[in-house]
Amino acid sequence: MASILVLNGPNLNLLGTRQPEVYGTTTLADIDAACRAHGQTIGVDVTCVQTNFEGGLVEAIHAAKGTHAGLVINAGAYTHTSIAIMDAVASVELPAVEVHLSNIHAREDFRHTSYLARVCVGQIAGFGMHSYILGMDALKAHLA
Amino acid sequence: MASILVLNGPNLNLLGTRQPEVYGTTTLADIDAACRAHGQTIGVDVTCVQTNFEGGLVEAIHAAKGTHAGLVINAGAYTHTSIAIMDAVASVELPAVEVHLSNIHAREDFRHTSYLARVCVGQIAGFGMHSYILGMDALKAHLA
Amino acid sequence: MASILVLNGPNLNLLGTRQPEVYGTTTLADIDAACRAHGQTIGVDVTCVQTNFEGGLVEAIHAAKGTHAGLVINAGAYTHTSIAIMDAVASVELPAVEVHLSNIHAREDFRHTSYLARVCVGQIAGFGMHSYILGMDALKAHLA
Amino acid sequence: MASILVLNGPNLNLLGTRQPEVYGTTTLADIDAACRAHGQTIGVDVTCVQTNFEGGLVEAIHAAKGTHAGLVINAGAYTHTSIAIMDAVASVELPAVEVHLSNIHAREDFRHTSYLARVCVGQIAGFGMHSYILGMDALKAHLA
Amino acid sequence: MASILVLNGPNLNLLGTRQPEVYGTTTLADIDAACRAHGQTIGVDVTCVQTNFEGGLVEAIHAAKGTHAGLVINAGAYTHTSIAIMDAVASVELPAVEVHLSNIHAREDFRHTSYLARVCVGQIAGFGMHSYILGMDALKAHLA
Amino acid sequence: MASILVLNGPNLNLLGTRQPEVYGTTTLADIDAACRAHGQTIGVDVTCVQTNFEGGLVEAIHAAKGTHAGLVINAGAYTHTSIAIMDAVASVELPAVEVHLSNIHAREDFRHTSYLARVCVGQIAGFGMHSYILGMDALKAHLA
Amino acid sequence: MASILVLNGPNLNLLGTRQPEVYGTTTLADIDAACRAHGQTIGVDVTCVQTNFEGGLVEAIHAAKGTHAGLVINAGAYTHTSIAIMDAVASVELPAVEVHLSNIHAREDFRHTSYLARVCVGQIAGFGMHSYILGMDALKAHLA
Amino acid sequence: MASILVLNGPNLNLLGTRQPEVYGTTTLADIDAACRAHGQTIGVDVTCVQTNFEGGLVEAIHAAKGTHAGLVINAGAYTHTSIAIMDAVASVELPAVEVHLSNIHAREDFRHTSYLARVCVGQIAGFGMHSYILGMDALKAHLA
Amino acid sequence: MASILVLNGPNLNLLGTRQPEVYGTTTLADIDAACRAHGQTIGVDVTCVQTNFEGGLVEAIHAAKGTHAGLVINAGAYTHTSIAIMDAVASVELPAVEVHLSNIHAREDFRHTSYLARVCVGQIAGFGMHSYILGMDALKAHLA
Amino acid sequence: MASILVLNGPNLNLLGTRQPEVYGTTTLADIDAACRAHGQTIGVDVTCVQTNFEGGLVEAIHAAKGTHAGLVINAGAYTHTSIAIMDAVASVELPAVEVHLSNIHAREDFRHTSYLARVCVGQIAGFGMHSYILGMDALKAHLA
Amino acid sequence: MASILVLNGPNLNLLGTRQPEVYGTTTLADIDAACRAHGQTIGVDVTCVQTNFEGGLVEAIHAAKGTHAGLVINAGAYTHTSIAIMDAVASVELPAVEVHLSNIHAREDFRHTSYLARVCVGQIAGFGMHSYILGMDALKAHLA
Amino acid sequence: MASILVLNGPNLNLLGTRQPEVYGTTTLADIDAACRAHGQTIGVDVTCVQTNFEGGLVEAIHAAKGTHAGLVINAGAYTHTSIAIMDAVASVELPAVEVHLSNIHAREDFRHTSYLARVCVGQIAGFGMHSYILGMDALKAHLA
Repeated sequence: MASILVLNGPNLNLLGTRQPEVYGTTTLADIDAACRAHGQTIGVDVTCVQTNFEGGLVEAIHAAKGTHAGLVINAGAYTHTSIAIMDAVASVELPAVEVHLSNIHAREDFRHTSYLARVCVGQIAGFGMHSYILGMDALKAHLA
Repeated sequence: MASILVLNGPNLNLLGTRQPEVYGTTTLADIDAACRAHGQTIGVDVTCVQTNFEGGLVEAIHAAKGTHAGLVINAGAYTHTSIAIMDAVASVELPAVEVHLSNIHAREDFRHTSYLARVCVGQIAGFGMHSYILGMDALKAHLA
Repeated sequence: MASILVLNGPNLNLLGTRQPEVYGTTTLADIDAACRAHGQTIGVDVTCVQTNFEGGLVEAIHAAKGTHAGLVINAGAYTHTSIAIMDAVASVELPAVEVHLSNIHAREDFRHTSYLARVCVGQIAGFGMHSYILGMDALKAHLA
Repeated sequence: MASILVLNGPNLNLLGTRQPEVYGTTTLADIDAACRAHGQTIGVDVTCVQTNFEGGLVEAIHAAKGTHAGLVINAGAYTHTSIAIMDAVASVELPAVEVHLSNIHAREDFRHTSYLARVCVGQIAGFGMHSYILGMDALKAHLA
Repeated sequence: MASILVLNGPNLNLLGTRQPEVYGTTTLADIDAACRAHGQTIGVDVTCVQTNFEGGLVEAIHAAKGTHAGLVINAGAYTHTSIAIMDAVASVELPAVEVHLSNIHAREDFRHTSYLARVCVGQIAGFGMHSYILGMDALKAHLA
Repeated sequence: MASILVLNGPNLNLLGTRQPEVYGTTTLADIDAACRAHGQTIGVDVTCVQTNFEGGLVEAIHAAKGTHAGLVINAGAYTHTSIAIMDAVASVELPAVEVHLSNIHAREDFRHTSYLARVCVGQIAGFGMHSYILGMDALKAHLA
Repeated sequence: MASILVLNGPNLNLLGTRQPEVYGTTTLADIDAACRAHGQTIGVDVTCVQTNFEGGLVEAIHAAKGTHAGLVINAGAYTHTSIAIMDAVASVELPAVEVHLSNIHAREDFRHTSYLARVCVGQIAGFGMHSYILGMDALKAHLA
Repeated sequence: MASILVLNGPNLNLLGTRQPEVYGTTTLADIDAACRAHGQTIGVDVTCVQTNFEGGLVEAIHAAKGTHAGLVINAGAYTHTSIAIMDAVASVELPAVEVHLSNIHAREDFRHTSYLARVCVGQIAGFGMHSYILGMDALKAHLA
Repeated sequence: MASILVLNGPNLNLLGTRQPEVYGTTTLADIDAACRAHGQTIGVDVTCVQTNFEGGLVEAIHAAKGTHAGLVINAGAYTHTSIAIMDAVASVELPAVEVHLSNIHAREDFRHTSYLARVCVGQIAGFGMHSYILGMDALKAHLA
Repeated sequence: MASILVLNGPNLNLLGTRQPEVYGTTTLADIDAACRAHGQTIGVDVTCVQTNFEGGLVEAIHAAKGTHAGLVINAGAYTHTSIAIMDAVASVELPAVEVHLSNIHAREDFRHTSYLARVCVGQIAGFGMHSYILGMDALKAHLA
Repeated sequence: MASILVLNGPNLNLLGTRQPEVYGTTTLADIDAACRAHGQTIGVDVTCVQTNFEGGLVEAIHAAKGTHAGLVINAGAYTHTSIAIMDAVASVELPAVEVHLSNIHAREDFRHTSYLARVCVGQIAGFGMHSYILGMDALKAHLA
Repeated sequence: MASILVLNGPNLNLLGTRQPEVYGTTTLADIDAACRAHGQTIGVDVTCVQTNFEGGLVEAIHAAKGTHAGLVINAGAYTHTSIAIMDAVASVELPAVEVHLSNIHAREDFRHTSYLARVCVGQIAGFGMHSYILGMDALKAHLA
């Protein structure tokens, strides 16, 4: 059974308490549980990691190599500013799907750009927790 | 049973014959069939429309009002240049999911921007034909 | 009696149903009727045309040559993106007045620019249906 | 009977002597007279003020509060550079109509932008002295 | 005998009546006749199509596939704004030569850029009707 | 006892009546009184001046030389557009503290830049009337 | 008694040894002591934290929720580049005052912008160690 | 004997006291005296005016019409920001020579641009008080 | 018999050895020979000059005056950076046709702009050696 | 014997496994060994540190003060985005040489800029592992 | 008696034949003669040099060192594009006055910028041949 | 024994006399001698060429083909503006190392960009004369 890493970036640990009009009331624990449950449905093993550090995301991506078959990544605010995370995904040569809770393209201009997107299979944004479920489906189809 | 409109824009009628290294060999008929089949699976009625005209997309969106509960739109090249299509979606006040076969954020700079995104629930890009299937799932979840 | 063409562009057929907080509840039929009534008051013959197609606007402008003495144009979203419509007005060498329901200069940045304005006598924006009436007055004065 | 202020900015006192190929031969006195005459026609009391000072425009706008029901403003060159005049109109919370003799959108690029427009009901540009008359009509309709 | 499509975009149907100081007095019928005559000289079969619609150009390009060996395209104003037409040419994988009556690089800045050029063999601009004749020669040489 | 000049620019005379959701209900007289009272507390003599004219601010700054030991300046909208006021402060070589009622860095983009800041000791923005009190404290500490 | 967090970002631990012509000779320990002393004067409990990590600032802000009533933040170089820290402040919904030792608006252009400012009550820059004291006063007044 | 107006803008009244490392120790009175003396040498009547107000410069330029044969203008900081002063010079249709004490093209970027230059005969910058003398010579030669 | 100058700029002497995937294997001698042969066919006398110096191109253009009836110019890399060559062509007032071996509009962004184009009859790019032949035809037609 | 710190940033720990067509097959251990060996040759003591954290680089630079005589830094992706690392090098006032494996100026545009370069002695890029050796030589010569 | 070099750049040898509506009918020989004559009047020895080569200007500037006391330079089109000429003037550390026949600030945008200005005493533009005479006067005064 | 060309561009012949605070007191003859001496040490034959002409650099690069195995180039100011020199290096297909005396990335913004870098193996900047020695080492290692 394929194993995938669901990786979350800065501030996502506060989910559910943070600006609910933008991000909703779902917590990160809810998302992790939903991902694991959906993993059982579609037959993939799911590991969930969250870190607020850019370097932490880089190292979690490195660690995925040899352990996981692919990545579902919500890099949060680092999506728009981090070349290091983009390079990390390119380095490990694992397929990655970029996900976002909100539709970043409908928010402030500085959230419209994504370094990460340049090295990902695709991007899913705007569907709240469901973005992760769709991202897992997309990754699984890509791995097949 | 909810009815949704899957709307395709310019050049998508040539799919399968067009730059297969970017878009793959799937034809538009394949996509339409897959969408209709997936519609039966998830319990939504699917109508597929394609037009190469910006005004044609505007009118198809208008026509959706009162007929369909939501839209899955691949506006193709008009995604990046058409304010009229964005206004059309805003006018009909139907939930819309933007989909793209390729990961537009990993291609030329002029494909990174989307007027359409400003009025959509979310965006799914990069998963080939599967982007439509994911878009239907996302729309259905949104309608629920 | 001079004849003028009142030309409407994309999405204006939905008027009254579309984002009423921006555009009000007046329908396009209301505008057409008001223009025709005002035409009788000021002694000009009024023809009203609407199309959602950029090419449709180009051809309606072409057709005006030899038939109408001038144009009142609300090109909608094409105002900001269409060089073809600008060229069409320049080609027919008819005086044209650009009108907008909303004050485009007080909205999103991409609505602040107008290719069309480069070839028009003037611009009237922000007065709802009344923009058309003022535009007709301005055109009539220009023709005199 | 409603009272309105017709406010003119820098260089408009030279009207008729200044670059007639752009602005025509009408003088500011002609415009004032026409506005007052038109005011009698449409039943509004008209006061005309001109100043070459940015601060003078700010203070004339302040003084309008409590005296006039609305403003017709041709801020001339300050249209494009003055945030202070924009703030003044916002401060007094009176409806204002922006007018221009020439079609500013068909001239040099630096005349295409208007800070003032962000706080006005609408904009009328390009009809010479008639822009003021149209502006008065538009303001009266807005006040009604 | 090779067959080529000479494709004309918006406003070119008005040629000869439109701004003769820029475009000359030649009509589109003159150009079509000249292209057909030159076709006989150089041994290629010539079909001439004109449309004012962006989508019309897209579909004419699609239709060329399997019928014509190459394209001579004057996309008019759409040259500068249409990604859809660029994608259409890329889709059909036919050699295309971009032509313009006027020297677009010596006119307004917004006419200096061409999306279409990215997928064409080459560009010929500034020689009036003769641009088409040169374009046919260039295409024929390319096909050889 | 050191003497300082508290200088206010355009529209600040309307304070308390102007957009209270942005600027609060405090009047300029309230601010002047508070500054004078706080001056007594911290042992500085306070003079308050307001003008709506850019040239008026320039001249008030000139006049401060030889009379006052330093400046607390809220240049209002001129903050963002006036090189002349910046030059005036540089000319008199008096320490100046820039203050703003609202947090200009959290408002429209054109309010994020300050020519004045280039020649001031520091900037305090966002604390309503209290910005002046903090500015006086900062200036006093700087003078010590 | 209200508790506030004084949070310092990258390189501020080197204060006093670092470019004294820009930042002065005060050490971070001096600042912490001064803040604590001033806290006693104005009746607020002060905690001082410093970290060189962007993620460390994010987590310190998270930790403040439920513990502190507000924040005084000098995010150092991250002020200009970190969307993650901005999002963290928005997430915890605590009032924050942005402080800087130097007048960032009078230095290199890339130090003129602040993501953080978008979510703070206000900004105080340029007064050396005294910026913190003023920031505490401002925060206390805001909390009152 | 021809009469010319030497017009000085904001902060020039402080000359000699202001940043002598940039502007030298010459006072405005010195410049006026030198211009008048040089006027006697070259046979032109010289009037010197200084104002710190943008509107003041506009009105001084207006007043020159019919009185003076030409203008030598140092608009100071308004050089870079004032469209109104440019329009004033264009309105009076008098030849104008733009002068600057310092070489504005060798200073901050925002001093490199001049609206005024668009309507002047020429520009002389960088020679201190001597720029005025050269400007008078240039104007006299132009008038001849 | 009319005489024309075929002028080649930097690096074109290396043609055939230089990046053949971009420029092909034709040498400059081949081009010169083809131009002279084609000149005999169409009845124009052809002189070929190549220089790697910007000043060399300027002087060759100067020398053409009085000797040649027109110019076919491939200014190579100087096309994009040289105002001096543009001025030279404007100075001699000879008709000039700009040619390029490759389609410069389909290459790096800095090759999309041409100062030279502003003063040329037209531009032909992308047809290898054949660009010169077409350029000669275009020039001859222009001279007729 | 002088001691220097060789500091490596994000993703460099994956060297040899990461995009070998860009970075080659050398591992970070190989680089460390080569640097230490070269240190013995040129008589400097070498310490090698790698971290994936921006804050980690900041702290490693801080720690170098008092321990090392200079720095050889490959800040990887942080080169282009980190003001904090630039400030850290400026703070410790140690000579630093910036090195890069690949020629960053020949890659994507966002890799052409370096904040770090503003405070370094010099930059060496493009020579793979040999960039470090050259950087050590350059630093040694600088220290001498 | 001081010696100065009057240095002319590209296309100035064609003066009098080139676009007389912009540059007048004066030839370079006329300018040289006028400069030499004026040199006798003001007591400076004048040498005149012209070259169409950027490198030629660089070398003429180098050669001036030790021979001439200062430079009057009209670098023509290289003014706007040449860093090398700017560096040459900086290298020889001779005072230089930049002159232009036309008012470059009133022409195309790309003629508004001057690298050369950054290292010159001042700039004189717009007075035809008289710009050189004024430049000589300015240089002489500077040398005194 | 491999032969390399050390190529120097504009103003480098003045080295040692030119702005010594930026470039030091070393002369070009010193650099040539040091390069030749270092060549003997590392076993490469060294030829040194300097020219102030862009075209001269182009031709020196052309001449290197077949004679030298690689290039060490300091193109001076042409680094930032010359596409022709970049094309010359690409044409000859010889490995080239770009060197600079000063750290161009720490100077004015217009010195941060290098066309030349796009076609070089690598870049070494900031180490004075030692940049050449390092460049020779780098080139030799690349050739090995």
